[in-house]
Amino acid sequence: MSIADWDRDNCAVGNTLAVIGERWTLLVLREAFLGVRRFEQIQRNTGMARNILSDRLNTLVANGILRREPYQERPVRDEYRLTEKGLDLYPVLVTVMTWGMRHAMDDAAPTMLLQHKSCGSTRLPELACPDCGETVGARDMRALPGPGATLRASA
Amino acid sequence: MSIADWDRDNCAVGNTLAVIGERWTLLVLREAFLGVRRFEQIQRNTGMARNILSDRLNTLVANGILRREPYQERPVRDEYRLTEKGLDLYPVLVTVMTWGMRHAMDDAAPTMLLQHKSCGSTRLPELACPDCGETVGARDMRALPGPGATLRASA
Repeated sequence: MSIADWDRDNCAVGNTLAVIGERWTLLVLREAFLGVRRFEQIQRNTGMARNILSDRLNTLVANGILRREPYQERPVRDEYRLTEKGLDLYPVLVTVMTWGMRHAMDDAAPTMLLQHKSCGSTRLPELACPDCGETVGARDMRALPGPGATLRASA
Repeated sequence: MSIADWDRDNCAVGNTLAVIGERWTLLVLREAFLGVRRFEQIQRNTGMARNILSDRLNTLVANGILRREPYQERPVRDEYRLTEKGLDLYPVLVTVMTWGMRHAMDDAAPTMLLQHKSCGSTRLPELACPDCGETVGARDMRALPGPGATLRASA
């Protein structure tokens, strides 16, 4: 069974992109990870149109990635905080940032650093094998069919 | 200077999403990392409309992430291969897949596994600090202004 012929239904990548695979959504998440929680601030920092921001926040809340928390009573105002499910998206943002630092900055100096709190390192985290600890990239890994893989009907 | 007030111009995340921050683009990259290189196969595996696929392939080639390589002479037919710059996107796809395995599969069995060639592990790679080797998540890291950080004009 060639990898080209596996069915792509219920693919973890496809299912994830259905929720977060969109530029504005990921910029909202960038702000969330930077602790920016209020509509007006997110709008200012991303330059998004208000209706688009409102729509993306609703989608993220509906998918359990952000939750609303009131910070003011009269009038009621909510801020947006990452849930545990949302915090689990941190590696996606870090790998996007890492690629961008290398390939999308046109030699501009980095505007942001990430620091590992416990050891103080400001070198960006890298993907590593949890068994042997080696750093891994595309050439170090192979894809195999999982228990849920099915052959494409038309293959 | 609060992190909320740094300018977001030349942000590595924003600049990257301008190129790949879109669901179809990332599905094309998924196929590329699985070794699926031909237009017809990518179209079949993603279900994309042909004009959208054509547009996204052109964008990826124009940005140096994919390159065209002829595989047939009459008529001329090209396939699409990842460049080094494209291969560097592997961690983005892996972290998207990892989140999806955990949060976007509705208890379906995984359709794909990734195996570390050198040690045989099929546990998914994790982000680790390159200095101390510790696995890191959102709570272990802090953002700091980089040398290119500037204060927002309106702040």
